[in-house]
Amino acid sequence: MVGGGGNAMIGPIHLRAALMENDIELVCGCFSRNYETSLATGRAWHVQRIYRDYREMMEREAALPADERMDFVAIVTPNKVHYEQAALALDKGFDVVLDKPMTFSLDEALRLRDKVNQTGRTFALTHTYSAYPAVKEMKARIQAGELGRLRLVDVEYTQGWLSQRIELQGGNNAGWRTDPALSGKGGCVGDIGTHAWHLSEYITGERVTELCAELSTFVEGRPIDDDAVALLHFTNGLHGVLHATQVATGEENRIAIRVSGEKGTFEWQQMEPNTLIIRWGDRPAEIIRTGNGYMSGLAKWNTRTPGGHPEGYIEAFANIYRNFVATVRAKAAGRTPTPEELDFPNVIDGLRGLQFIETMVKAGYDRDKKWVKWVEE
Amino acid sequence: MVGGGGNAMIGPIHLRAALMENDIELVCGCFSRNYETSLATGRAWHVQRIYRDYREMMEREAALPADERMDFVAIVTPNKVHYEQAALALDKGFDVVLDKPMTFSLDEALRLRDKVNQTGRTFALTHTYSAYPAVKEMKARIQAGELGRLRLVDVEYTQGWLSQRIELQGGNNAGWRTDPALSGKGGCVGDIGTHAWHLSEYITGERVTELCAELSTFVEGRPIDDDAVALLHFTNGLHGVLHATQVATGEENRIAIRVSGEKGTFEWQQMEPNTLIIRWGDRPAEIIRTGNGYMSGLAKWNTRTPGGHPEGYIEAFANIYRNFVATVRAKAAGRTPTPEELDFPNVIDGLRGLQFIETMVKAGYDRDKKWVKWVEE
Amino acid sequence: MVGGGGNAMIGPIHLRAALMENDIELVCGCFSRNYETSLATGRAWHVQRIYRDYREMMEREAALPADERMDFVAIVTPNKVHYEQAALALDKGFDVVLDKPMTFSLDEALRLRDKVNQTGRTFALTHTYSAYPAVKEMKARIQAGELGRLRLVDVEYTQGWLSQRIELQGGNNAGWRTDPALSGKGGCVGDIGTHAWHLSEYITGERVTELCAELSTFVEGRPIDDDAVALLHFTNGLHGVLHATQVATGEENRIAIRVSGEKGTFEWQQMEPNTLIIRWGDRPAEIIRTGNGYMSGLAKWNTRTPGGHPEGYIEAFANIYRNFVATVRAKAAGRTPTPEELDFPNVIDGLRGLQFIETMVKAGYDRDKKWVKWVEE
Amino acid sequence: MVGGGGNAMIGPIHLRAALMENDIELVCGCFSRNYETSLATGRAWHVQRIYRDYREMMEREAALPADERMDFVAIVTPNKVHYEQAALALDKGFDVVLDKPMTFSLDEALRLRDKVNQTGRTFALTHTYSAYPAVKEMKARIQAGELGRLRLVDVEYTQGWLSQRIELQGGNNAGWRTDPALSGKGGCVGDIGTHAWHLSEYITGERVTELCAELSTFVEGRPIDDDAVALLHFTNGLHGVLHATQVATGEENRIAIRVSGEKGTFEWQQMEPNTLIIRWGDRPAEIIRTGNGYMSGLAKWNTRTPGGHPEGYIEAFANIYRNFVATVRAKAAGRTPTPEELDFPNVIDGLRGLQFIETMVKAGYDRDKKWVKWVEE
Repeated sequence: MVGGGGNAMIGPIHLRAALMENDIELVCGCFSRNYETSLATGRAWHVQRIYRDYREMMEREAALPADERMDFVAIVTPNKVHYEQAALALDKGFDVVLDKPMTFSLDEALRLRDKVNQTGRTFALTHTYSAYPAVKEMKARIQAGELGRLRLVDVEYTQGWLSQRIELQGGNNAGWRTDPALSGKGGCVGDIGTHAWHLSEYITGERVTELCAELSTFVEGRPIDDDAVALLHFTNGLHGVLHATQVATGEENRIAIRVSGEKGTFEWQQMEPNTLIIRWGDRPAEIIRTGNGYMSGLAKWNTRTPGGHPEGYIEAFANIYRNFVATVRAKAAGRTPTPEELDFPNVIDGLRGLQFIETMVKAGYDRDKKWVKWVEE
Repeated sequence: MVGGGGNAMIGPIHLRAALMENDIELVCGCFSRNYETSLATGRAWHVQRIYRDYREMMEREAALPADERMDFVAIVTPNKVHYEQAALALDKGFDVVLDKPMTFSLDEALRLRDKVNQTGRTFALTHTYSAYPAVKEMKARIQAGELGRLRLVDVEYTQGWLSQRIELQGGNNAGWRTDPALSGKGGCVGDIGTHAWHLSEYITGERVTELCAELSTFVEGRPIDDDAVALLHFTNGLHGVLHATQVATGEENRIAIRVSGEKGTFEWQQMEPNTLIIRWGDRPAEIIRTGNGYMSGLAKWNTRTPGGHPEGYIEAFANIYRNFVATVRAKAAGRTPTPEELDFPNVIDGLRGLQFIETMVKAGYDRDKKWVKWVEE
Repeated sequence: MVGGGGNAMIGPIHLRAALMENDIELVCGCFSRNYETSLATGRAWHVQRIYRDYREMMEREAALPADERMDFVAIVTPNKVHYEQAALALDKGFDVVLDKPMTFSLDEALRLRDKVNQTGRTFALTHTYSAYPAVKEMKARIQAGELGRLRLVDVEYTQGWLSQRIELQGGNNAGWRTDPALSGKGGCVGDIGTHAWHLSEYITGERVTELCAELSTFVEGRPIDDDAVALLHFTNGLHGVLHATQVATGEENRIAIRVSGEKGTFEWQQMEPNTLIIRWGDRPAEIIRTGNGYMSGLAKWNTRTPGGHPEGYIEAFANIYRNFVATVRAKAAGRTPTPEELDFPNVIDGLRGLQFIETMVKAGYDRDKKWVKWVEE
Repeated sequence: MVGGGGNAMIGPIHLRAALMENDIELVCGCFSRNYETSLATGRAWHVQRIYRDYREMMEREAALPADERMDFVAIVTPNKVHYEQAALALDKGFDVVLDKPMTFSLDEALRLRDKVNQTGRTFALTHTYSAYPAVKEMKARIQAGELGRLRLVDVEYTQGWLSQRIELQGGNNAGWRTDPALSGKGGCVGDIGTHAWHLSEYITGERVTELCAELSTFVEGRPIDDDAVALLHFTNGLHGVLHATQVATGEENRIAIRVSGEKGTFEWQQMEPNTLIIRWGDRPAEIIRTGNGYMSGLAKWNTRTPGGHPEGYIEAFANIYRNFVATVRAKAAGRTPTPEELDFPNVIDGLRGLQFIETMVKAGYDRDKKWVKWVEE
């Protein structure tokens, strides 16, 4: 693992998610730019090989015998350094799990896409929210035509933790996220807007083609957006509304999506992730609950507990790791991975994420132009 | 009452709402253009004086002695005929309760505003959703500064009943609502979008100054919008997102609003109207329930039952009638009505409703212009 | 109306419920033992004939010509005086709507049952909670066999308003309810336990045959139960658990019931009365919502608004009045009332309510005897 | 690990829970009485040392050098064999994590308690539901006096999976649970009733002293209870109602508890485990959400994700393992474990669980005796 040390929130999540199937072992790491922090984290996690620097790690791991060296690397650093770390890992022959947004800039994203294609390595991006079983269920049922032709998708990612300028206080994860030099062009739109956008494309199977947006900064003095809203046009006539905000005071982590088609409407909310509502035009709505026998194969494949035993965020995260590892193993065995194994966000999702940020920034600060085409490069 | 006969949904609602305080009596009516229907309705409702025609009704009622004639008239017809009926009633000296949208066109709305001002009659418009006690509570607390400076309002009015082209089947209320010749320029935006917009202004106390919108028709062959979405700019820096739709299959009548300020966020949903959530940045969210002692005076004034005894749509409707009558009585007694008595939608709300439709139509079909200023005339 | 004046909670509820169909007019009353209060209430409600005393009222109304005198009387006094008032009204030829519990003692209940039978008058008891459309839906579906053989009913009526000894403060409705001299043997068990019991019999169609109970008083100094819990055995092998309490601090008016049979389980809660959940053994649970086309005829008959327009407590109350009046009119027309018209709580429900209190009191203070047979007389 | 192989539900849960902190490694196992099944499970989980028999495992592991042998054993077999397996492990010097109910009989439970005391080993019982952070929060706040003197606890554990006689079909986990020869005297009361009972004592800090109960079998032909209901008397005047059932068709795994005291009421439901409601007598109810800064130290200690990132059943399970291991490490280091470290169900909880079953069986089939004292031996 690169990053994740000290008081980082996401490092321990990655670790727990990776461990869940007893199929992955944490063998080495460079958990912080501060070596003392890195050592302390490594000791707490019982890791033998702790490196001062990610370059050193890649070099020395690559030099180890095949049965000793790490098989893949999880990169959980701020996105400013994603590209160089991921590219080096791929060059050194390691498969990669990377936090989102994939890179700092669209240019880096394009280059990373090429790098993945050239090296043929397996690459996963942790758009965790698309890995919940209830989300898989929506995708499977929409693919099977249950909703008929799709019409509307309303997606939101609502937080309140940046409703004051807490980045000035230090000691929290707000600093780099609100600093354009570290997070890139997008603040809220990159940090959480990308999750909302990804969810909408993942579930519906459609792609945004143009959008009309506004990026706003509500907290005085903040040099980057803390609120992003967009009207979306997708392929095949689907329309969407997306609202991502970090200034809705008191909101925790509300990711909610509704998708309507001719025949019905799905409704899901991440904070109660095991419940999915489907509304019908001509009969009572149904409460679909994960872990039950009536679920689709795709949802069951991504479920660990029987009905009524709630699964949460770490289990969703673990689904990405499990499918990533299954794909790695399939390739290693010379076998084509199944669609279920390949069902994790990849470098194309990552590239489209950067294109989404680019398009939103282009549209979001323009007072005149209404509809902006999806930016490809 | 003018209109409301036969299988109309809203006539009996008006009647029940009006009767609730035992302070209003239904004395005469012209319930349908079909006299037989009108007579049948009148008999069912124990009404003595049933007229063939609203003009006849206004004339003859006006000719009765003061203690016999009707005191005010409720007009519950399609908005095509609102102006002529309301204007005549005002001219004949009657106070008026009118269904929304107020008129067929903005021009009529301006003229009706002038007519109300000239005659000095009391005029109420039934934007029912703003009359729920929990909505009053939000208004009262925002006025008192509980949320601090406002930032965001997300409002939706989501229905699914027009997700098929049921207007072709007849026998339902879809016909005139989807016919521009009868409903005016706006379909969904006029029928339910105006409610969502009104709620946002009523609660926040701010006014929309410009908007960016899209009107869409999802059901093939329908000659008017069935979906309306807008980004809103209000006075004092408040931003909003509004989505009104009639094609979200399976949705009943979901009117939901969230308002965020620096200090907290309100959340309310019309289908569970007695519960209001307030989220805080630094402590647990609270569940505010109507009928309890901690409610504001404004909410209590509009509440009939103790906590835990749910009130519904008819009670909200009845609040408009009660406050309207209180105002009429105050004026009759030569007294200035209190703010609580005057707290019902009036002709200015109605005028702004038509301006909202006008602005939405102007913005909603324009592919180029992003922000459209609020249309005043 | 007898009673209901001053700050009584239930008088205005009765009035609004009665008025809702524009089919009932309040023509006379004796609203309080205090004549000044009675006069004030009568003036506020526009009532012409206000009497000093219920006896005077019965006498004088009975002496009026048939087309002038009241048709029926609503008695909304404490249950201490129910019997004498209701019996006199019946004797004088008036139909009666009476608040629950029906009488002060089981003996009075038996006598009132006989009186109703002798006079042939129409008699309704306001067990309001059984009049919600969703409750009707459960009854209709169970009768149709949707749940298969019934097994379990869990019913609760949970309040917190008596969790302190507020009856000592005066000025509220707690005084007579906690005074055995005024309320009878049962406190909580009579005031709200009877509602819970009635709901369980109404919905399931089964009758309690024996029970095991405990009555408790949690608030020091209170001379009557404020908490009642019972295990219930019904006809046909149905088992139940009933918990009625007034000391669950902070609870408003939570009446909740679940009924399980071989095939499914119903779940309903009074504070969100328009939603009914039905769970199935082999497929997703369904959300049944009042006002929709798929509802049973019985539920539709008791519904006033379309789906998504919430109905509440007053509308449920109004269903009792409407069905009562429909029955009165049918009888007056020499027609046998339909089952839908007769669907309101009657004198047998009232008698069984007193038997329930009697049985609960007998069982609830007995430390030794476990199962107590339903007390018939 | 002993047990957990093949299609067992609980084995993989134990494993994932144990792995979550990267502090436990699965080094050996005897996963099934069928050696082939055991080998297959072991291979899937990357386990080196797989034994044919738990006796062989204990013997041979004990003979290994201290730094090679297992440190503790998780026993996840049916309760019929718990005693002999756990006793042997303790005798061989291993700490033990054991599934509930602790043993087959009360006699075994008493002996196991003595064994734990004699050997001084650390022993944990997986009453998982008491390990959720929201449950810890209730315990911490009640200990701090937030509710005042406690009055009522209503607890339920409701399932529907045994509403048909699926144990005859084979291939599921119903077989041994409904066979008294394998599960002991209690069916539903032992399998899930014990969880409900444990939760009530854990949260309130009070102990049941006597109870009045009924055990029932609703599914024809089943030789053991599938429904258990009890009225409970606790120390310090607390009263309770407990309902555990496996025949509420369509219910998944509803564990719900409410606790009322003089000042407020807690409400929690396991299927949405991150939300806790607290109701107050004099102000709005609060929504307490895990992961937020206002939570108690005890809850935070048992939380892994920030607010809005849901934790589930596996994380609760993992809290038991983590606290168990922390206690083991503290003892190994010669340090007294902290109260937080010792906060997992122990052999006394296990013994009381068997006493609960014994008392419920004694009371539950007795038609005459109402209150049965808690059975100590």
